[in-house]
Amino acid sequence: MDRSQWFTEICEEGGSAFSMKIREKLHDEQTAFQRIEIYATEWFGNLMVIDGFVMLTARDNFIYHEMMAHPALFSHPSPENVVIIGGGDCGTLREVLKHARVTHVLQVEIDERVTRLAEEFFPELCVSNNDTRAEFFFGDGIRWMQTADPGNVDVILVDSTDPIGPAEGLYTEAFYANCHRVLGDSGVLVQQSESPLFHMDIINPMRKQMQAAGFADVQTLFFPQPSYPSGWWTATLAGKQPLSETYREQDAVHTHIKTSYYNAAVHQAALTAPEFFHKALE
Amino acid sequence: MDRSQWFTEICEEGGSAFSMKIREKLHDEQTAFQRIEIYATEWFGNLMVIDGFVMLTARDNFIYHEMMAHPALFSHPSPENVVIIGGGDCGTLREVLKHARVTHVLQVEIDERVTRLAEEFFPELCVSNNDTRAEFFFGDGIRWMQTADPGNVDVILVDSTDPIGPAEGLYTEAFYANCHRVLGDSGVLVQQSESPLFHMDIINPMRKQMQAAGFADVQTLFFPQPSYPSGWWTATLAGKQPLSETYREQDAVHTHIKTSYYNAAVHQAALTAPEFFHKALE
Repeated sequence: MDRSQWFTEICEEGGSAFSMKIREKLHDEQTAFQRIEIYATEWFGNLMVIDGFVMLTARDNFIYHEMMAHPALFSHPSPENVVIIGGGDCGTLREVLKHARVTHVLQVEIDERVTRLAEEFFPELCVSNNDTRAEFFFGDGIRWMQTADPGNVDVILVDSTDPIGPAEGLYTEAFYANCHRVLGDSGVLVQQSESPLFHMDIINPMRKQMQAAGFADVQTLFFPQPSYPSGWWTATLAGKQPLSETYREQDAVHTHIKTSYYNAAVHQAALTAPEFFHKALE
Repeated sequence: MDRSQWFTEICEEGGSAFSMKIREKLHDEQTAFQRIEIYATEWFGNLMVIDGFVMLTARDNFIYHEMMAHPALFSHPSPENVVIIGGGDCGTLREVLKHARVTHVLQVEIDERVTRLAEEFFPELCVSNNDTRAEFFFGDGIRWMQTADPGNVDVILVDSTDPIGPAEGLYTEAFYANCHRVLGDSGVLVQQSESPLFHMDIINPMRKQMQAAGFADVQTLFFPQPSYPSGWWTATLAGKQPLSETYREQDAVHTHIKTSYYNAAVHQAALTAPEFFHKALE
């Protein structure tokens, strides 16, 4: 294994590493917030790395982005006003804008360079960036949520980096309490929540904090994500109302939205927890 | 990354590699059939490697073994007589023997050394090896299936290595036709079928060959398997009767069998195919 031909991310807490064979490094930049590298890989297409961690690949990001967007949006009775915290690569934004009911999406990304590099190296994720419903604000999502008006947002999607560094404050009860305040009566929050194999110490507190912040229902979505540690990932949904009551199942079944991973059956399947997860929550 | 501290499996067809941090190499042996290495890893417990490919780790094999055994056994009206082809590490056997209805399990493993090393390094998988219902035959599973009496077996589980080398003949219509002949009227076959992301060129022909061999119903099970390429894996179920008709749902729901991954809800969820899989089968 010639190290120069591979990009490797080591997951210290999982005693494991995932590597992708690379053709060339396309870009390397230190922004005001983080280091961003872009590689062309052999199989996974273009790869974006932030501070040494895989953010996304062209080949497998569809699973993550579809599972961040569609379960949350179909779990709201009428998602019109949406806020994305993070999400700079615009893949989640693209999925959200597939929903005809959505009238406005504000994306609050701290680092504008992520979006500019996505436009250059992942143009397929940015096809909807000029949609008149999309608004971009490059700033701090934690502060935005502190100062936003109450009760105006239908769905909040927290599509951030891991809970170390700038994103740490997005994994706190204080942040969830602000989300709860900013959301309308049937509001839904979803946040990426790491690996069920390696990170129960993140998932479990997140669920408890969301409940403590006032959310009536918290459910974890499970899905594969080959380029993330353990290849198995979660997002956690929180609803101000019970999610099974606000879920628009018929809309999910009969949707015209084109997807590669998500469908209504996958929605239900992804909410199914393995046995050890039930035990870990007890 | 000090290479001496890591075991790495490269997946050429996926342009990727998975590595586990190792504490020490415990065993290295060339048998009559293959090279078997055993490592102690940092996080995954003991690791068995055959011809350079990860066979199992102590930490994550529960997902694979439970998903190989329980969906197939609960999909048969009364699984009494079971045959395992391969399965030398005895993890699938342990799961099968948790079913009280099972009266006899014959395990046909080509390489006795796999079983002897499992007894030494994975004793937790071999706790049922002395069960009076278990019979071990060390020989060629392809030949065994050619010469076995017809109509006598309820469930066949093909728990083999990848379709290169000695296991190649287990991925053929001729083998499935023999399985079909050996199974009783409501017989169920299950076979591990690689990654849905990297190996549609294996899954798709397998499904077609099982159908061509006479199976009335073929369904693919999806589950995470962090130590296998892409971290996402499948097993394919084939039934002589429609599997939804023979599935004992109430038994799966009310089972006393202790599991860490499988439960009745997971059973249904694992049968749910992502959107791209439906398209790939068209």
